[in-house]
Amino acid sequence: MDNFTFFNPTKIDFGKGKEQVIGQHLAEHGIKTVLLCYGSERIKRDGLFAVVSKSLAAHRVELVECGGIVSNPLLSKIRDAITLARATHVDAVLSVGGGSVLDSAKAIAAGTLYDGDVWDLFIGKGSIKAALPIFDILTLAATGSEMNCGAVITNEETKEKFAIQSVHCFPKVSIINPELMQTISRDYLVYSAADIIAHSIEGYFTASVQPKFHSRMVEAIIGTVIETTETLLINPSDYDARAEFAWAATQALNGLIYSGTSGFSYPNHMIEHSLSALFNVPHGAGLSVVIPAWMKWYHGRNPAQFERFARTIFGVATAEDGIAALEAWFDKIGTPTRLSQLGIQQADLAATIENVLGNASYFGVADIYTRDVVTTILTSAL
Amino acid sequence: MDNFTFFNPTKIDFGKGKEQVIGQHLAEHGIKTVLLCYGSERIKRDGLFAVVSKSLAAHRVELVECGGIVSNPLLSKIRDAITLARATHVDAVLSVGGGSVLDSAKAIAAGTLYDGDVWDLFIGKGSIKAALPIFDILTLAATGSEMNCGAVITNEETKEKFAIQSVHCFPKVSIINPELMQTISRDYLVYSAADIIAHSIEGYFTASVQPKFHSRMVEAIIGTVIETTETLLINPSDYDARAEFAWAATQALNGLIYSGTSGFSYPNHMIEHSLSALFNVPHGAGLSVVIPAWMKWYHGRNPAQFERFARTIFGVATAEDGIAALEAWFDKIGTPTRLSQLGIQQADLAATIENVLGNASYFGVADIYTRDVVTTILTSAL
Repeated sequence: MDNFTFFNPTKIDFGKGKEQVIGQHLAEHGIKTVLLCYGSERIKRDGLFAVVSKSLAAHRVELVECGGIVSNPLLSKIRDAITLARATHVDAVLSVGGGSVLDSAKAIAAGTLYDGDVWDLFIGKGSIKAALPIFDILTLAATGSEMNCGAVITNEETKEKFAIQSVHCFPKVSIINPELMQTISRDYLVYSAADIIAHSIEGYFTASVQPKFHSRMVEAIIGTVIETTETLLINPSDYDARAEFAWAATQALNGLIYSGTSGFSYPNHMIEHSLSALFNVPHGAGLSVVIPAWMKWYHGRNPAQFERFARTIFGVATAEDGIAALEAWFDKIGTPTRLSQLGIQQADLAATIENVLGNASYFGVADIYTRDVVTTILTSAL
Repeated sequence: MDNFTFFNPTKIDFGKGKEQVIGQHLAEHGIKTVLLCYGSERIKRDGLFAVVSKSLAAHRVELVECGGIVSNPLLSKIRDAITLARATHVDAVLSVGGGSVLDSAKAIAAGTLYDGDVWDLFIGKGSIKAALPIFDILTLAATGSEMNCGAVITNEETKEKFAIQSVHCFPKVSIINPELMQTISRDYLVYSAADIIAHSIEGYFTASVQPKFHSRMVEAIIGTVIETTETLLINPSDYDARAEFAWAATQALNGLIYSGTSGFSYPNHMIEHSLSALFNVPHGAGLSVVIPAWMKWYHGRNPAQFERFARTIFGVATAEDGIAALEAWFDKIGTPTRLSQLGIQQADLAATIENVLGNASYFGVADIYTRDVVTTILTSAL
């Protein structure tokens, strides 16, 4: 096992009705005015906004609205929100939504206290020295952002989807109420399943140091995601399945399964970020296309681990059968496995490959993910 | 899944040589003088004390020595240490040792800032409102104390082994260097294995709400402990096995596998605490005696989970076969499975039963663990 430091100070308040105590959490942190970030106006129609407003009011916390955050969240919106946060002198940021809203909230929290353009923080021109305190009520379980210190934002001008990571960006409190996730569409449920699996397998397959304990924990997460997704597709209101799905999502990217692993990369995310940045496909849908194609290209580099995956997750013997089983499972639950299902055609490949090569430089893996390799993977996904 | 709050702010600094940076961690927290708690003088002979002293000196942190803490740590020692801590105006407590030293450090840290006798905090006469900051260098992996906020102390006058738990008792920083654990005796290795398994199974078998995801994580921990213990018995200097063993120990009792579970109790610990309190047996050795006896009595109350355990951990079909397999594994690695191996005879049973009944009241499970039940369990362990 490699040396590591593990530190995760986010408080998770998990369960039914927990959104009602958001005001109390903010008050305990001395917050007076909060920037309330959200996506569509749906939270006003379904009553969540009213619950949150009431809880904030009960604890004398003022709110400044910042709605309209889209999935694959955009840099321009972050910049506008930072201007708003500064003008209104908010002393915290509250995300009510899924990973896109929360990632935006993190970028806003860091950018508000950064003396320069927030994109500097994504491209290494500046570093995060502080951030407004971040709180969130999670309405979609997938990204793990509720218990980590990272955020991914798309620069729509440069078509770059890049990340920040800073100890200042751990949420102070994340509220996870699986009941709030019961109305998620069937599509977003299966995309989320693909996203959680992607978070779990990047290190599992690519790490040069991957302890068996960690592989076992990854398998616990993937087994849970597979089982609960199937349950939820039949019965979306199964609370326990929704809760296990959500908590598995959190565990997949809170640092635990990566503690002590090393030499890993995020190739599936790296490739998918280009699909999102160029074609605005849902992140999880892009991942379920990339993963099988990447696995088919990669498995010979780590055959024992691919055989382990095949055996423990699907009860089949060979690496190839394990990959086929995962692809078949994606097909079965209805998340895409082909670029064509995302509306991406042969004619789009050249631009996609260029974008992926840019990401490969950014991720420091340009020596492995050469033009030939990226072409091979993307072509096999057509 | 039940509602829960998960919060674990301990920073883990894990790996080779990490004890050398303890001074830096203390300095980052503004510590000027620290009470250095330890057990035997072994840390002076093996060089660890010198490494720690040097690191503290390099960061201008003064140290006050508090050695001589024994396993099954004693209240009298805690009281003396609190007097010392107050007299020397230390502003933190540093444990260098295993769970007994660390649990003592926690009790000292809380007791120093409590205006009254520290035992009040164990019996509900007082509550922990603050504690000195706690740091530790772990030299034995078993109790999980390095990443939780609990501590267990024996009152040698009343023969009670009771616990405290407070958010103020999370260590600020825990240093886990598996290299420091390579010289642990064969006996203490196998006792530790039993302790970790005990932490894992209490909730697994007794919880009325036990999500499958959590069962999977428990199985990941137990599988790791079984495999790495066997490796370490053959090759005590296998670093990776030592590291996985240690990290599994931490995960077994840092709150993760209990998050969202409910209705559980700690019957094996409850019974074992009487053995430790009365006969000063090593905690893990007591547990490996209690566990099979308790399982034989209990399994009919949760047959599906016992069958799951049998199948996933030992690849056998029935609850009885799973219990037998665990007992056989304890025998194989050389941790006791009979009270007689601990020097406890039939004649000692009456006093033991009385003590366990006292614990059952303390744990709030006196309705289940009646005199008849406790007699049945202990008699079958003779």
